Amino acid sequence: MTESKSAALETALAYHRAWTSHDFELAMTYVAEDIVCQAPAGPVVGGKAFREFMGPFSQLVTHSALFAAFGDDQVAVLMYDTDTISVKDAPGAEYLTVTDGKIRHLRIIFDRVPFAAARQAATNQ
Amino acid sequence: MTESKSAALETALAYHRAWTSHDFELAMTYVAEDIVCQAPAGPVVGGKAFREFMGPFSQLVTHSALFAAFGDDQVAVLMYDTDTISVKDAPGAEYLTVTDGKIRHLRIIFDRVPFAAARQAATNQ
Repeated sequence: MTESKSAALETALAYHRAWTSHDFELAMTYVAEDIVCQAPAGPVVGGKAFREFMGPFSQLVTHSALFAAFGDDQVAVLMYDTDTISVKDAPGAEYLTVTDGKIRHLRIIFDRVPFAAARQAATNQ
Repeated sequence: MTESKSAALETALAYHRAWTSHDFELAMTYVAEDIVCQAPAGPVVGGKAFREFMGPFSQLVTHSALFAAFGDDQVAVLMYDTDTISVKDAPGAEYLTVTDGKIRHLRIIFDRVPFAAARQAATNQ
């Protein structure tokens, strides 16, 4: 795993370790109340909306592996593999802007296709 | 734009600048003949297959903006926005492994949903 050290990266990694180990409440302690998350389906604004977006996903994760982590004083980039209950091989990339130890902005890139396929398969059962 | 300097990053940035400015032949000079690209739809193996995967996409790009670029001696991470003729707002994340100035492995993460929607819309016209 490739890693550089910085203040923003420390926060990003602490957040990442928490949600991937199913401690979403701990993860939320690193998230600003006014977070703006740019997700593939559109913006997710504020801590409550963010909790509803990421919380359920984090509970579905069965395995995760971080393969890139870089950052400087303001921002961090994380790239990781996850397996979830419904989707095997769901990699993600995050660009996190951190101020005073809190994630204020989170840009997340992932492919929604396998999640849509899993939902469709569940509907067809 | 956030950037750190390294040998791998220099190669990644040169490749990125080339394909986003529609000089795909120049971009391919940074790509190893035995490249393995892990794309959302599956692996793309070898220079010829990679050319067929990325070449047409690069021609469709109407605008691009790099917003993160980090790296060390072996690997680089790029995150960028692109607009294409059919899809506005198509961000991507790349994890590039570089040896001797050539990209040997490229992990690319993007959301296929808007591209599938654009294809569907074109089919329905």
